[in-house]
Amino acid sequence: MTAGTDSFGREHFEAAVEAARRGLAGGGVPVGAALERHGRLLAAAHNGRVQAGDPTAHGEIACLRAAGRQADYTDTVLHTTLAPCAMCTGAILQFRIPTVVVGEAETFGGELDLLRGRGVRVVLLNDRRCVDLMREFQRTRPALWAEDIGA
Amino acid sequence: MTAGTDSFGREHFEAAVEAARRGLAGGGVPVGAALERHGRLLAAAHNGRVQAGDPTAHGEIACLRAAGRQADYTDTVLHTTLAPCAMCTGAILQFRIPTVVVGEAETFGGELDLLRGRGVRVVLLNDRRCVDLMREFQRTRPALWAEDIGA
Repeated sequence: MTAGTDSFGREHFEAAVEAARRGLAGGGVPVGAALERHGRLLAAAHNGRVQAGDPTAHGEIACLRAAGRQADYTDTVLHTTLAPCAMCTGAILQFRIPTVVVGEAETFGGELDLLRGRGVRVVLLNDRRCVDLMREFQRTRPALWAEDIGA
Repeated sequence: MTAGTDSFGREHFEAAVEAARRGLAGGGVPVGAALERHGRLLAAAHNGRVQAGDPTAHGEIACLRAAGRQADYTDTVLHTTLAPCAMCTGAILQFRIPTVVVGEAETFGGELDLLRGRGVRVVLLNDRRCVDLMREFQRTRPALWAEDIGA
């Protein structure tokens, strides 16, 4: 385990949940993410497909973008409300983020096996609030959900 | 092979090369990408880490962003001057882009095996101009190269 990533701040996961809720309130996809370094929040953001018209702006990508250029990510933790898709999983691998805290993988399985297979520590919270947020979104906005992840 | 992706426009690969050169001229990482649908150029862009201060703006991501929201990518071809990293590979998989035209994989191997393993057709051009562009960049801007891909 990389030093400094054994623990993570639960409050930063809450920042990801809040971002997801803001995303939904803005008419978008309710996935949020937050990047933490040694207990400090670097950035939090939500999916911006609708709000920014940007298909690459998944929560995790938007968060990494908002955090700006960083020399090193090996002492960071990425929090996300939903299991990362292939793109966001690839970003985690590319940026060498050692720990990912995932709200839920029930409504979308993502690429958790690929993350784990490449040595990333995945902390799966099974957070019911995140499940409920996605289930409601998938039920009420099926076309947008299909466009964004197409599961 | 998905209909419409058996062939691709060489001129669109040239658009990726031109984007890479513009990226270098602007002080950035010289990787460019172009997205094509049935012979029509949807977008071309270059890495924007320096120019936009955005670590997620690899050439391929910047190109997908520039192309905007698309309902479907299964009839597109993505051209890129350099073998896609894990993030960009993940984006290709997530967006279900069936064909990727790659300038070179000599200066950075990328994740071509992962792409092929998931059924993506990889057309590797071994373009010497792309190799020379990257070798010169890696020699003259090693810190920026390390920050961007860290190979």
